[in-house]
Amino acid sequence: AEGGSSAHVAARPAGSGPAYETLLVTTEDDITTITLNRPAKKNAITTEMYNDIIAALDQAAKDNSVITVFTGSGDFYCSGNDLSNFTQIPEGGVEESARRGGDLLRKYVKAYIDFPKPLVAVVNGPAVGISVTVLGLFDLIYATDRATFHTPFSQLGQSAEGCSSYTFPKIMGPAKASEMLLFNKKLSAVQACELGLVTEVFPDSSFQSEVWTRLKVYAKLPPKSLSLSKQLVRSVERDRLHAVNDAEVELLKERWTSDECFNAVMAFFQAKAKL
Amino acid sequence: AEGGSSAHVAARPAGSGPAYETLLVTTEDDITTITLNRPAKKNAITTEMYNDIIAALDQAAKDNSVITVFTGSGDFYCSGNDLSNFTQIPEGGVEESARRGGDLLRKYVKAYIDFPKPLVAVVNGPAVGISVTVLGLFDLIYATDRATFHTPFSQLGQSAEGCSSYTFPKIMGPAKASEMLLFNKKLSAVQACELGLVTEVFPDSSFQSEVWTRLKVYAKLPPKSLSLSKQLVRSVERDRLHAVNDAEVELLKERWTSDECFNAVMAFFQAKAKL
Amino acid sequence: AEGGSSAHVAARPAGSGPAYETLLVTTEDDITTITLNRPAKKNAITTEMYNDIIAALDQAAKDNSVITVFTGSGDFYCSGNDLSNFTQIPEGGVEESARRGGDLLRKYVKAYIDFPKPLVAVVNGPAVGISVTVLGLFDLIYATDRATFHTPFSQLGQSAEGCSSYTFPKIMGPAKASEMLLFNKKLSAVQACELGLVTEVFPDSSFQSEVWTRLKVYAKLPPKSLSLSKQLVRSVERDRLHAVNDAEVELLKERWTSDECFNAVMAFFQAKAKL
Repeated sequence: AEGGSSAHVAARPAGSGPAYETLLVTTEDDITTITLNRPAKKNAITTEMYNDIIAALDQAAKDNSVITVFTGSGDFYCSGNDLSNFTQIPEGGVEESARRGGDLLRKYVKAYIDFPKPLVAVVNGPAVGISVTVLGLFDLIYATDRATFHTPFSQLGQSAEGCSSYTFPKIMGPAKASEMLLFNKKLSAVQACELGLVTEVFPDSSFQSEVWTRLKVYAKLPPKSLSLSKQLVRSVERDRLHAVNDAEVELLKERWTSDECFNAVMAFFQAKAKL
Repeated sequence: AEGGSSAHVAARPAGSGPAYETLLVTTEDDITTITLNRPAKKNAITTEMYNDIIAALDQAAKDNSVITVFTGSGDFYCSGNDLSNFTQIPEGGVEESARRGGDLLRKYVKAYIDFPKPLVAVVNGPAVGISVTVLGLFDLIYATDRATFHTPFSQLGQSAEGCSSYTFPKIMGPAKASEMLLFNKKLSAVQACELGLVTEVFPDSSFQSEVWTRLKVYAKLPPKSLSLSKQLVRSVERDRLHAVNDAEVELLKERWTSDECFNAVMAFFQAKAKL
Repeated sequence: AEGGSSAHVAARPAGSGPAYETLLVTTEDDITTITLNRPAKKNAITTEMYNDIIAALDQAAKDNSVITVFTGSGDFYCSGNDLSNFTQIPEGGVEESARRGGDLLRKYVKAYIDFPKPLVAVVNGPAVGISVTVLGLFDLIYATDRATFHTPFSQLGQSAEGCSSYTFPKIMGPAKASEMLLFNKKLSAVQACELGLVTEVFPDSSFQSEVWTRLKVYAKLPPKSLSLSKQLVRSVERDRLHAVNDAEVELLKERWTSDECFNAVMAFFQAKAKL
């Protein structure tokens, strides 16, 4: 169907950069598109994918494209951190696992903070966890009306990342942000748009065609004016965002070694096993 | 009636801490509830009550509860600062009175800034003055549709406190915040919700039952994850909030000794005497 | 007609200060009103007008008025920077032109940041460019339903000013602000109000009478309480706003000497010549 996200990413022009296992990266019409491509797992992000996305963002920052788009293949945008990342305990135990996870997370969020061009999320379906929290670091967020936005941190004994502990209260005020960040409230696309987290919501049937038509027009604007304007907006907040990222990662490292988190993640896998 | 706030606070379990003259403090279902209990005076806050609330917040921070709730008994949430506080002039005159008032106010607002657990306002009716301004320091604000939000500072020759000179423009933008903070606009509950000051509005008939049902669920979430997440969000703003509190108190001390304030408060009492 | 802006500014009381070529400044009912008066050019701001507005704001800060109002005569509020400012190249070439333009812009925006009394925009029609971006520095913004808000920076190879690179994301969140600041989206008055940029929208037929009735009431409030409250709100942000102003001006100086900007402005004049 015209509305399917696979339609856009199907064409893979030559010279589109290195291939990734579970990531598609294409450049067309001055737009570099990074597509999470693990639809069978609802595009949950594995350790390998975090590293691949960092590399893809680094490449998009340097290529000739004007705008960079982040999206998902299949029905989901992204189901967040793959919780199986928690089950691969290295030598050194959970402390070492938390240290490595923290380093990777800090680097991952840093890649969004420092990204120098307009960054657009094309949210093609439900979004969970870190795929939601980093949206506060995007410039435009277009969502299908099928999208939902869910950050169930405390439910998993964890805490906010992606700079959302700062960007969400700033965008929607603490009275609304706390419902998401502390109390696991899931937002509809329309609710997220009313709260300013999402730029605009489209009917699912015309989502892809409407969004890409618009983005192709935007990508024809003066490129330096766009990138310098984006950097201007970011420059006021950059130092604070890096400090917030650091503080969030430190807390999460503590959380990942806590009983609350261990018990909550175990309960998640037990519930899954029963299905 | 099921919807009455008195229904919830009626039960006073043993071990609920010290008794206060015009404050009820109870702990039940992992929730500590601080209830302003001076309904005949619309829960206006006297000097004694400021001190009692500071003590109650300190106690709630240390007890085993997961969530702390602030509410009012009777039809009003809180009519703000009891203006009779202005009529008790100590030896040392209005300067001494302003100095003492400033010290107490700074300490009062500080107790909200530093509160370490999720803090929820259950706004059971009209809210005025400082009971409105500190809402920017709460995590969740639930309001009955009978609630209104009014900060008539300039009308009384005074100026904003409770960190609202910073939090209100941040939450709703200066174009909306100025109407409240400079020009005495009274908001309906729905308006306050649309502007992000309030989390959600409920019909008065089901307000208490809906809110408490939800809060009891929230209080079962992992406690450390909740408190640490709340502290994470607050940590980015804490220094700035303390500085704002200091600046607001300094200005108010000047205002309290000004002719504008004296004349406005006198006019208030004269109008009241005529009724 | 009662709704016409000219009705209000027609009366020019004695002692209203110096006369300007294309600016009307009047003081009445404790309100100083600065009216852009170049309706044949849609109130586009020339170099002379920037200087005159700075002088008028300086004068309004010192006079006995309580509130200062900014508005436009005719159908437009203001069409922004007069692009013919770009065609008067001084000795020293475009670099010298950019240096002078930057100095003037910095001083112009500084006048808004440091203005000590409540500042109200009465947006009587379409607003473009710098007349929109400085709105983030106003206290109240009332708009006719005929008003639109448009900041086509990247279209002209330029970048944001008036502190909008900071105030707009703060007011409406980055997801909405980027559409305006990067991608030239024009907002309706109702959209601008929903996003918090505008305080309230009125039907054009009753706009002037409703707004001025309200402002006359506001101007009777205790003057020092109003000005000190406004300065309190501003004081938290003042240093940051000056730093943002500086950064925006530096980037614009670079933009004004760039090929992207030169080509875009040339294209603008060519399109105009063809009409």
